[in-house]
Parts: sequence; structure tokens; C-alpha cells
Amino acid sequence: MTCASGPGAEVSGPLAILCGGGAFPLEVAGETRRAGREPFLVGVVGVTDPGIEAYPHVWVRMGEVGKLFAALKGRSIAEMVLIGAMTRPEFTDLRFDWGAVKRAPELAQLFRRGDNGLLGGIASIIEREGLRIVGAHEIAPRLLAPVGRIGARAPSADDETDIALGARLLAALSAFDIGQGAIIASGRVLAIEAAEGTDAMLARVAEMRSSGRVRLSGLAGVLVKAPKQGQDLRFDMPAIGPKTIEGAAKARLRGAALAAGQVLIVERERCAREADAAGLFVAGFAHATPAG
Amino acid sequence: MTCASGPGAEVSGPLAILCGGGAFPLEVAGETRRAGREPFLVGVVGVTDPGIEAYPHVWVRMGEVGKLFAALKGRSIAEMVLIGAMTRPEFTDLRFDWGAVKRAPELAQLFRRGDNGLLGGIASIIEREGLRIVGAHEIAPRLLAPVGRIGARAPSADDETDIALGARLLAALSAFDIGQGAIIASGRVLAIEAAEGTDAMLARVAEMRSSGRVRLSGLAGVLVKAPKQGQDLRFDMPAIGPKTIEGAAKARLRGAALAAGQVLIVERERCAREADAAGLFVAGFAHATPAG
Repeated sequence: MTCASGPGAEVSGPLAILCGGGAFPLEVAGETRRAGREPFLVGVVGVTDPGIEAYPHVWVRMGEVGKLFAALKGRSIAEMVLIGAMTRPEFTDLRFDWGAVKRAPELAQLFRRGDNGLLGGIASIIEREGLRIVGAHEIAPRLLAPVGRIGARAPSADDETDIALGARLLAALSAFDIGQGAIIASGRVLAIEAAEGTDAMLARVAEMRSSGRVRLSGLAGVLVKAPKQGQDLRFDMPAIGPKTIEGAAKARLRGAALAAGQVLIVERERCAREADAAGLFVAGFAHATPAG
Repeated sequence: MTCASGPGAEVSGPLAILCGGGAFPLEVAGETRRAGREPFLVGVVGVTDPGIEAYPHVWVRMGEVGKLFAALKGRSIAEMVLIGAMTRPEFTDLRFDWGAVKRAPELAQLFRRGDNGLLGGIASIIEREGLRIVGAHEIAPRLLAPVGRIGARAPSADDETDIALGARLLAALSAFDIGQGAIIASGRVLAIEAAEGTDAMLARVAEMRSSGRVRLSGLAGVLVKAPKQGQDLRFDMPAIGPKTIEGAAKARLRGAALAAGQVLIVERERCAREADAAGLFVAGFAHATPAG
């Protein structure tokens, strides 16, 4: 992936960051500021890490659509990043304000779609307000998996075979609006990620190995991560971080393979260091960009 | 599925049952005896339930292939059923006897295949000794899921939509030698079963709901079970039992849908009763027979 223009080169004004769960939004906020642009963080009550309060921010409840847009407009914000884990809310959990009621038909549509559709729907509602959605990878390309190894170790030829199988599997799952992760060991599919997320999938493999349900000696198995086909990389990009490496180490995997240019890595240096210490590889592999 | 000849109608002599883990082998042994045929159970040390000792039986360690065949031949056994969960062993866990050494090339092949291939390989080694492998469903067709509801409740039209999606998903996964189970809720894939098994998948959904990772109100989601395409139904047939119903109830699913004629139900009356008590449906759905 090339990035012809430097971050923040054309657009002035703060960058809004709509923050899901986890540490990722803070990482992106830090990268944004490092690139010379001011972040403005939107936290979702009950979802977002309170750490966002280190930056200019506003808190909204799910459904407070009017409050969200009012906060942005008062700050001449033209661009927004959607980042971090976003739990699909139940309709009954939503706290609608007048701004939401005005947009009721668009919001209702969100509940008739899969997760892919949910995020796409949120994005299109935001864009209808005149904001431009940008990907975290455009703002902070330093966070993307490159092609090739990231730590000291590289995948073996056998690992490459498992990586290729995992990539084919994830592509086949794309039609079902799932599939950002799978774990493959010598041609055998040990686990597939659906709603539980990567950390839970890794914990499952660790458990299967310690219980003897899956019997493999030494380091075995490869975590493969790639976006769904048709996934808009401006939001819901697959991501890994130190927690992923820790989970892979506990599952005694051989390593983690990431679709280059399509998976975000938080705290890359720390990931590489901890993977090295655990004897794992972390590497990007060339993977067709998902068709939009 | 029709069964023109009654169980045990043509073949005399005891029926050997190679017993994996769980209560299933005992159920099949009971059905065999009820049909007027004597079962002879082969238990695998560390895998099989000691309850098999209620029947004529022999214990073998994994790799004691010679001992297995000697026990069968001394009893003029011509047919064998393979049933119950079988963990893929590590090569180093195997205890080879002379009978195994003589069959070394065939055994070595088993370790170069997926699980589907593992069981097919075991079957072909057995058949090379002149034994015929029969399916538990041929011996005990009463254990098979029929078309339509099994307990008091039937799937709704929305459930049928989720069942169809699950069936398509499992078909797509077949190419990867996995996929006997998935859980779908209103078009969303909550979980896919790989090496962890159905019980662990159900527990995961229960956990995701109680933690709030997946937010659904009331009974929601359908467990869909179907064999892999190309799966030989004479062994490794998908199965459910009271434990599955208990798991589905804990996950607060709406029900369980089983590919008719292709999924075994242990303790059917108990399953129906417990599903009724929990407010779940259990139903068979028409599903293309997997191409062999």
C-alpha cells in the first residue's frame, strides 16, 4: 500500500475519531497528533476506554445521534475515523435523541443487516451529514502489516502452506459476512472466528491443547487474519496487538500471519519483541485486496 | 432415509463396535442387542467409556492393530461399526504391536490426512482385513433425525431462514474438511464449530451472551448440524444428545436443526422432553445427502 500524500496534508481542522472498545482508538489518536493533526474523540458510553479523556472528546450514548453531530459541527470537523471494537447493540438498549428520530429510517435499516452492513450503515449516515469517512490506515499507515516478517522469525514453507489454506478459508467465509481469523495446524482447521473475536479463539485453542482435545507437540498452528471480501477497510479493519501475541503464545502457535496492508498492528515494536521472546513469527503475507 | 432390510436381517454373528469417547457407543450397543444381534465392543484405552464392560468387549491401546484384529477373528465377526468421538492421536502416543508394523505404510498414510481422511483411512485398513464397515444408522436407524419436529415445538419461518443459511455455510466449509455445526441468529453467524466440538461451541455462545459480547433478547439463535459434503456416513456422523440440548438451553437458543437422515440423536425421547421443558425446538430439515 502506498500513501502519496502525508497524513493531514490536505485537510485542516481536527480529525474526529469515533471510538469503539479497546486501546486502538488511543493509538490512532496518538498517531494523528504525531502527524501534526488534532484528534477529537467521540466515546460511546459503556464501550469506549475512559482513556480518551486525555484528548479533546465528547461522550455519547448509543442512539444519541443528534448530540454526536452537534459536537462535530461546533468544531468544523470534516473527517472522521471509525475505530475499535463495536458491539452490535440491541434495539432496546438505544437511547434515541431528536437527531436520531429525524434519521429513523436510516437507523432502522441498520437492524436489518449483518455486522458488515451495520458499520457500512453507520458510515453512510455519517457521510450524509457531509463528513468524510477515512480509514485509520490512511491516517496512520505506520500501523499496517507490511509484506514479510515483523519480528525476528519468518514462517517456514509448511507455515506458508497453512497460511495459504487459512486465506482460502477466510475468503470462502466472506459470503457469510464473517471470517477475519482462523487457526490452521498442518492442514487442519483448528478454529474459526465468528462473533467471539480473535482473543477468545486463541484462548479456545490453548484450552483444546491443554485438555488434550487437540494433540500437537511443541509450537504448532498458525493464526491467519485477513479482512472479509467486500469489507470496507475504512472501518472494521482486522487488527492485532500485544494481547493477540500473548494469546498466540499461550496457544503455543508457531506464529501469526496478517494480510499485508489490510490488518492493523497496535504497538508494533512491542508485538515484535514479545513474539520474538515467545519464539513466534509475526509476518504479513500478500493477499488480494477485498473487492468493495 | 429408508431401510429395506431390518437390522441384522442378513448377517449373522456378532457386530463389532469400535468405540470412541462418549455415551454413544453404548447406545448403539443397546440398539444392536434390541434388534436381536450380539454386540462385541472394542474399547480404546483412555478414550472409551468403561461402561462398555457391560457387554462382551476387548480393550486395545491406540496402535495395537494386531490385537484388535486377533480379537475380532477369534469371534467370526464380519461387520464393524465405528462410533463415538475419536481424538486424532499424536504419532508418539501410539503403542504399535506387530500387527501394526505389518500395516505400517497404511498407518503412516493416516498421519498425512485431515480428520476426514483419518477415519476413512482407519475404515480402509479394517476393510482390507475382510471386515465390512457399516454405519450406526444402518444398525440403528431409530437413532437418526427425521424430517420435521422431534419435540413439541417447530421452527418458525425466521428460524427456517437461519437454518437455510447455516446449511449453506456448512456446505461451503466442507471443502476445508470441517463444519458439522454452526449457530445463526437472525442472519448473523455467531459461531462455527471446528476442532472444539459442538458442546464447546454452545458454551461459547452462552458465554458471549452472558458477557454482553453478543446482545440478543430472549431465546435467539439456531444450532444447525449437518455432515460435511463428501463425509462417509458410516463413520464420523454428526450427533446430538441430551448434553447438546442442555448446551443449547444454556445458550438460550431457539432450537436445534439437524440434517434429516444424516445426524444421530442419542436418547431421543429424553432430548425431546428436555427441549420441550426449555422451550426449544429440535427438528430435522431436508438436506442434500453429501456426495461421497
